[in-house]
Amino acid sequence: MAGGTNRAGGQGRRPRARDIADVLGVSQTAVSFALNGRPGISEETRERILSKVREMGWSPNSAARALTGARSSTLGFAVARAPEDVGSEAFFLQLIAGMQSVLSAQRYGLLFQVVPSIKEEIALYRRWSEENRVDGVVVVDLRVDDDRPRVLKELGLPALIAGARDPLGRIPSVSFDDAVAMRTVVDHLVSLGHRAIAYVSGEPAFEHIRRRREAFTAATEEGGVAAAVETADFTAEDSARATLAALAHMDSPGALVFENEVMAVAGIETLRTRGRSVPGDLAVVSMEDSLICTAMRPQITALHRDTLRFGAVAAQQLRRAVDGEDVRTRDMPPSRLMIRGSTDPSVEAG
Amino acid sequence: MAGGTNRAGGQGRRPRARDIADVLGVSQTAVSFALNGRPGISEETRERILSKVREMGWSPNSAARALTGARSSTLGFAVARAPEDVGSEAFFLQLIAGMQSVLSAQRYGLLFQVVPSIKEEIALYRRWSEENRVDGVVVVDLRVDDDRPRVLKELGLPALIAGARDPLGRIPSVSFDDAVAMRTVVDHLVSLGHRAIAYVSGEPAFEHIRRRREAFTAATEEGGVAAAVETADFTAEDSARATLAALAHMDSPGALVFENEVMAVAGIETLRTRGRSVPGDLAVVSMEDSLICTAMRPQITALHRDTLRFGAVAAQQLRRAVDGEDVRTRDMPPSRLMIRGSTDPSVEAG
Repeated sequence: MAGGTNRAGGQGRRPRARDIADVLGVSQTAVSFALNGRPGISEETRERILSKVREMGWSPNSAARALTGARSSTLGFAVARAPEDVGSEAFFLQLIAGMQSVLSAQRYGLLFQVVPSIKEEIALYRRWSEENRVDGVVVVDLRVDDDRPRVLKELGLPALIAGARDPLGRIPSVSFDDAVAMRTVVDHLVSLGHRAIAYVSGEPAFEHIRRRREAFTAATEEGGVAAAVETADFTAEDSARATLAALAHMDSPGALVFENEVMAVAGIETLRTRGRSVPGDLAVVSMEDSLICTAMRPQITALHRDTLRFGAVAAQQLRRAVDGEDVRTRDMPPSRLMIRGSTDPSVEAG
Repeated sequence: MAGGTNRAGGQGRRPRARDIADVLGVSQTAVSFALNGRPGISEETRERILSKVREMGWSPNSAARALTGARSSTLGFAVARAPEDVGSEAFFLQLIAGMQSVLSAQRYGLLFQVVPSIKEEIALYRRWSEENRVDGVVVVDLRVDDDRPRVLKELGLPALIAGARDPLGRIPSVSFDDAVAMRTVVDHLVSLGHRAIAYVSGEPAFEHIRRRREAFTAATEEGGVAAAVETADFTAEDSARATLAALAHMDSPGALVFENEVMAVAGIETLRTRGRSVPGDLAVVSMEDSLICTAMRPQITALHRDTLRFGAVAAQQLRRAVDGEDVRTRDMPPSRLMIRGSTDPSVEAG
């Protein structure tokens, strides 16, 4: 465990016997004895040490484990979504698989839990911290004005945000640059000659979607093309509805950008039933790639993120934070736009 | 912890101090002292007890924990697949989410790990058992002639097979009745008047797929319709190839059954590029349901399994096994066939 201060800008710190001993002018041994309930120190010293520890926001139990270096050898991963939604997102399982590829080799476990709300997620973090169940947590689906970074910093529980940046920089993150990703998509469509682009987007309450929407507006303005944004939830039905709403704004030759592959498939099928062909009448891009994009004919042009690698980097960074290292916010390499038949007829094999 | 014998037919048993004490004619206290390395018994007695415990296949450490009732409060879930494949299967994450819905309420954790092979999965079980990292494991993707039930029984690690039955009944299971499911699909297609049905199937090395294939052959024979089986891996490309191979055997009006939804989409798109319409020329059924089935137009008729509930039942049963209860093999309620436009034009909304 590195002795230096943690400059990560947000990781907080687990207490060290020396820090407490220095503050109170007692020996490190006394601190250890007090926390572990062992005899050999006066009751008064014990009380002073315990109240200092509580003042630092620690329970004597979890402080004792932290001091002895006792680790749970487990990282925590909570997701606040309806269980049905979680299951339909290949992203989460790939993220877990990527994390495990690093953690297994280190004999580290991953505790995965689905919770009904952010509030319950925060309660879980408090419990995990109190019971020393995990050495650190990975945080996903960062919301605009999210309270989790503040709470995690207060708890002193090492944490890493995956998939977005904390705007206040309290917790380090690993993320894809969503603004660059959206610009890549818009530039591709503009270069193909499209003069109108609609974005069937997810909820802007998610930080990464907020960034994508801002970038969409900026990039279409710079490209001098007409732009429209429609918001849909992640279901096929709502995406079909939003696609029709977007069509009302579109002049051919136009293009549609969808937040994920299920929404893109629903959009393409909706266009087909209205007699519009892809890419002949309208080009289509998905902001997420998956097997389904290559199962369609034409195949769907999609932004390909290396989610396995992303999970591996997230696990490595969080492990470094757990080891007390200075962990800085990091961007993944740019996502690759897989250009397929839904935007470019020349690449379609049939 | 129930005192009765475990009649689960396969759970093995964790050692109890009384059993060891009875066999050796020593006191239960002596057994506890020996396992915990405490003084107060002769070296000879200690050695006799430890060698008996080892003979029973236990390490003294894990036996000591089992005796004291110390629990890890964690269940283990290992999947031997390439990480990319795991991520593309909504099934696994829904299973995990379903298990968590039960485990969270009990403050139980789930340790999920992706391993490269069944061999490594077995090594992991040994390590988990030795280190008392998990109280029990859920086993998926049971293969024909799978070695895992034997090893788990030997280790005495409580286990539950999810998604297939151990043909030798060593480990209890929770599964869908794949034979009934396939019969439901074939009966539906026969009732629509189809005289030829092809099954684009996954690898028969999986126990649940072997059962589906057997049922397909039996049901099509009984229905008096022509049948063909093509094997494909779970990729879109291979499914497209297998679809074309199956077409060679088909006379209209015919139907195609696909192992999962990605394969079904690849099959439908392949048919479209060959100028065959769904369901006009050929009906299509997917053996798995997901959001993608309702995103397609026509929507894809699919067998809907309640995977969340399945995960919850699996977790409940495994928890009961961990508590020493008698856990019997159990079938989930029959999967529901969601009849949609890909087999029945009358239900298609457009």
